[in-house]
Amino acid sequence: MGNIYYNPWDEAYKSPFGAIQEGESVRFSFQGEDSGVDRVYLVMIPEGHEPYRVKMEAKVPGYFQTEFTFKDGKGLYFYHFELEYLSANHQRFVRFYGWSGNNGHGKVADHLVDCMNYQVTCFQKAETPPAWYREAIFYQIFPDRFYNGNANGQVNSPKPNTFLYGNYADEPMYIKDGQGEIVRWDFYGGNFSGIKAKVPYLKELGVNALYLNPIFEARSNHRYDTADYLKVDPILGTEAEFKDLLDYLHEEGFRVVLDGVFSHVGRHSRYFNYDGAYGAEVGAYQNIKSPYFSWFTFLNYPNEYRSWWGVKDLPEVDKDNEDFQRFIYGPMGVLSKWNQLGLDGWRLDVADELPDPFIAGIRENLERFSDKVLLGEVWEDASNKVAYGVRRQYILGNHLHGVMNYPLRSATIDFLMENCTPEEVALTFTRLQENYPREVFYNSFNNIGTHDTERILSQLEGNHQKLSLAFALLFLFPGVPCIYYGDEAGLTGGKDPDNRKFFPWDSIDETCYQECRKWLSLRKQNELLQSGEFGLLYSERLLGVLRYDQARFILTILNPLEVEVIVAVNNFATFRKLPLSSERLEELLEGKRIAGYGSFVVEGSL
Amino acid sequence: MGNIYYNPWDEAYKSPFGAIQEGESVRFSFQGEDSGVDRVYLVMIPEGHEPYRVKMEAKVPGYFQTEFTFKDGKGLYFYHFELEYLSANHQRFVRFYGWSGNNGHGKVADHLVDCMNYQVTCFQKAETPPAWYREAIFYQIFPDRFYNGNANGQVNSPKPNTFLYGNYADEPMYIKDGQGEIVRWDFYGGNFSGIKAKVPYLKELGVNALYLNPIFEARSNHRYDTADYLKVDPILGTEAEFKDLLDYLHEEGFRVVLDGVFSHVGRHSRYFNYDGAYGAEVGAYQNIKSPYFSWFTFLNYPNEYRSWWGVKDLPEVDKDNEDFQRFIYGPMGVLSKWNQLGLDGWRLDVADELPDPFIAGIRENLERFSDKVLLGEVWEDASNKVAYGVRRQYILGNHLHGVMNYPLRSATIDFLMENCTPEEVALTFTRLQENYPREVFYNSFNNIGTHDTERILSQLEGNHQKLSLAFALLFLFPGVPCIYYGDEAGLTGGKDPDNRKFFPWDSIDETCYQECRKWLSLRKQNELLQSGEFGLLYSERLLGVLRYDQARFILTILNPLEVEVIVAVNNFATFRKLPLSSERLEELLEGKRIAGYGSFVVEGSL
Repeated sequence: MGNIYYNPWDEAYKSPFGAIQEGESVRFSFQGEDSGVDRVYLVMIPEGHEPYRVKMEAKVPGYFQTEFTFKDGKGLYFYHFELEYLSANHQRFVRFYGWSGNNGHGKVADHLVDCMNYQVTCFQKAETPPAWYREAIFYQIFPDRFYNGNANGQVNSPKPNTFLYGNYADEPMYIKDGQGEIVRWDFYGGNFSGIKAKVPYLKELGVNALYLNPIFEARSNHRYDTADYLKVDPILGTEAEFKDLLDYLHEEGFRVVLDGVFSHVGRHSRYFNYDGAYGAEVGAYQNIKSPYFSWFTFLNYPNEYRSWWGVKDLPEVDKDNEDFQRFIYGPMGVLSKWNQLGLDGWRLDVADELPDPFIAGIRENLERFSDKVLLGEVWEDASNKVAYGVRRQYILGNHLHGVMNYPLRSATIDFLMENCTPEEVALTFTRLQENYPREVFYNSFNNIGTHDTERILSQLEGNHQKLSLAFALLFLFPGVPCIYYGDEAGLTGGKDPDNRKFFPWDSIDETCYQECRKWLSLRKQNELLQSGEFGLLYSERLLGVLRYDQARFILTILNPLEVEVIVAVNNFATFRKLPLSSERLEELLEGKRIAGYGSFVVEGSL
Repeated sequence: MGNIYYNPWDEAYKSPFGAIQEGESVRFSFQGEDSGVDRVYLVMIPEGHEPYRVKMEAKVPGYFQTEFTFKDGKGLYFYHFELEYLSANHQRFVRFYGWSGNNGHGKVADHLVDCMNYQVTCFQKAETPPAWYREAIFYQIFPDRFYNGNANGQVNSPKPNTFLYGNYADEPMYIKDGQGEIVRWDFYGGNFSGIKAKVPYLKELGVNALYLNPIFEARSNHRYDTADYLKVDPILGTEAEFKDLLDYLHEEGFRVVLDGVFSHVGRHSRYFNYDGAYGAEVGAYQNIKSPYFSWFTFLNYPNEYRSWWGVKDLPEVDKDNEDFQRFIYGPMGVLSKWNQLGLDGWRLDVADELPDPFIAGIRENLERFSDKVLLGEVWEDASNKVAYGVRRQYILGNHLHGVMNYPLRSATIDFLMENCTPEEVALTFTRLQENYPREVFYNSFNNIGTHDTERILSQLEGNHQKLSLAFALLFLFPGVPCIYYGDEAGLTGGKDPDNRKFFPWDSIDETCYQECRKWLSLRKQNELLQSGEFGLLYSERLLGVLRYDQARFILTILNPLEVEVIVAVNNFATFRKLPLSSERLEELLEGKRIAGYGSFVVEGSL
């Protein structure tokens, strides 16, 4: 069949690489030399628009090219190639060339149905974040579980009929009735003054930004069941204390991102006020004349209503309701209040549940202030996410600056637990790099664990050396790293609630802490790890992370195996061209012994 | 059939009344005048001995008498009468006369099987209590639920994996898993210093003795699962604090009785040490070489063992084990330690589970000290209680001084809720008065509610006036009253755990408090209510409680109905002769209007 080849990960075939801003052009080149291919058509399908069938020119025989301009606006453009052959008896017949699925290059298919389209993400606007954001190293705090700053350990204003843990070392649990319903909420009593008191610890660790799980008044300890968007939860402290904490953090060079939970509220919120348990305010559940009635969707008033994933404790809010929109992002709304107080950004909880126009409304609000970042909770490749039948606009401009990078966490665990090959890690991240607009890719909010996942150390079966490699990946990858509180202190635990233990102030694991700090420091000392270009090398056993610019590079080789591995550069491959020749790689790596669960870092000039 | 009659509640028929000390004699008189009865035999059956058939002498025709000496030792003596008739044709035939069941008098039966025996309790020794005991007005404290004396409300040394209530007003609950097993213990944090801090309150209320629910180290909040008999529970404070509390209470004129829980220990005790959770000590569960192995009864080592009512958390101790006996009441044992520290007595938990010799051993220990009282948890008539097939020796001398008076509580509720007639109350208490040795009857540890029952105010459906009458009965009856903490403050609640709410320091119900204090004060001001003779009057609607001595009396009439009742003395009856003639009663009571749920108290000379 000859040399039929196309690979968008190689700029000889698609230039420029990756996502494209609307109105820009791309040069596609297709290699069909000696293959019998006579004509090649680029079939480009802008989602929601008419497809194009562009005949590619063969300036040199067997080498087909065309320029394509993305003029149908932002969105996803899918494409493949149509190959026209001229048979020996001069009959014309057609084949198709589409993505192979396991590398950049594609494969020929006899039938269109067997041909997988390539994707080009076309964005409206480069999502340049606030300058501080890329320089940030985040630390995620689940406020109830971090530290209680009251001198005598008293808990601020415990809510009625709640339990406090007898000891910080007690294991978290849900208190449920026989039907599995939560009947009391449990608190350790972490609070604003506790965060303030631990700023020296955070500075010593090296972080300079906080992502706080919800802090608004709610009934639960996680506070995803907002009771009042305009009040901080009294168990955390007063609004004055919060303001004081914010100011202090800013003075100390920190930025603060809050959790914005706008998809639903708590059943016991002032808005819904189930059974009147919240207080005097007339909620939607109580009376259809409630000012909040229109926010909710009742199927059978008042007991049947839409709720988040069917959880009756979390009535869903209609995000298309203009009154609610005004309340959240209007000039006198929730976001304005807290932005004015000094917040530096928001992480939108369950972004899939928020319609794009709602997210755009939030973004518009933030743009009225300076320097605010907007991140979204999306678990998958955000470029082509479909939620509730709708292709999402998250990262195409004027919506989110970036999304939570759970793929990094999955890849980290799979790689370190030998559930995937280094090649698969490289494949995943080359695709993300291709699909995300460059700025969005670099805005990724990276994690190796959050309040919604099992603890990374538990996922790694308690192996401290693997944990160190996990921190390495967190700090080496493009995006903004975020440490989930306590991961650096050796906290373990399975799913919620075990992933929400209290921070072990009296028994911080020194090894975990030092390994975290080591990789964190490496990132801080190397501008390249923040903003450098990114590439991955893989062999059967090892993964290499390369960051570089025009002048310099830093390359880290990670060994996920228990045994020592001796590097043979010949065994390495890569999906994209890197600026290091194989000679140079040999010089740098050949014969290096990388200890079991070890790593090797090398820096140099290009 | 004529005037066949016998009634041991009338000294004309049985003298003296009631229980008899061993070796003493009783004169039985039987009325058979004009009945055709020719001969009467007293059939006396000392339990465990040969019966007697004593021919009664007819000194006056139709009036039969005999003296019977109780020389078969302490225990229960049952008796009835055999009546020999001489028929018109000079045939002799036999009938029987035994107790009627609803009054003192009996009834004739044709067959022995239809004849119910009377009981005489024969005791070894009059149980004169320590002098202070009869003067005591007790207050029962469930220590976790009374008051936390720490300045900042901190809880002393919470145990691992426990919960503290967020607020004192939170409703108590058990934290169970799906199988209904308690998985965490819940604490409010009451402690020794809290009791000390509230001594002024207790003095103001008027009590002068405390009965404390268990205070030794344990895992639960009730501490009936002892972990270490020789240590106070750290959550309550240190031993020094306990000693300090004791000394302070003594200075302030208080006496202190502890809960002795010797039937079983906690699974997580140092003695059993299930799974080693207690600590380093090798418990019986862990190794058969444990010094405590012989205390327990394993059916299949180690997982099948005898436990209290099958509750695996409470392994039963073999009270016949000499090593355990020595440990509890030996010279260097548990009781000696705490008695030396200054305790004034013990309430034995689940006395039915403690063999008589074990109780006697405890009593012997107490006798080595001065002034110690020994009370037992017995729910029924303790004179004829059979537990596990054995007739119990509780109140026959050298065992208990007295028992908890749950019959008073039941009668109080039944009377006030109109579930029984005043006559039934009188019947119950005349029987107890007859069956108990006099001293034991006056040693009764009276209650209208404890940690093991629903709250009295809830039992009375929240009716504050009925609560006042319940307090009246508590303070008017012979025996030593004990207020369950918070009953005087208006606490409500159903069964455990709702009967163990935290004392409502911020919302003491003034009415309840004042009514309690009123009756308490009446008792303190009237020596007769402490030591006077006792009799009950009843009408269809009203109950009268009479206390008197040679010179004086105090009579209280209680109206359990919502409506006012006007006293008609003619309607009153009594099971025993009282020192007030009907003329005198008329003078005192006739025509008095007693308000709905009201009472009328009259005092005077005899």
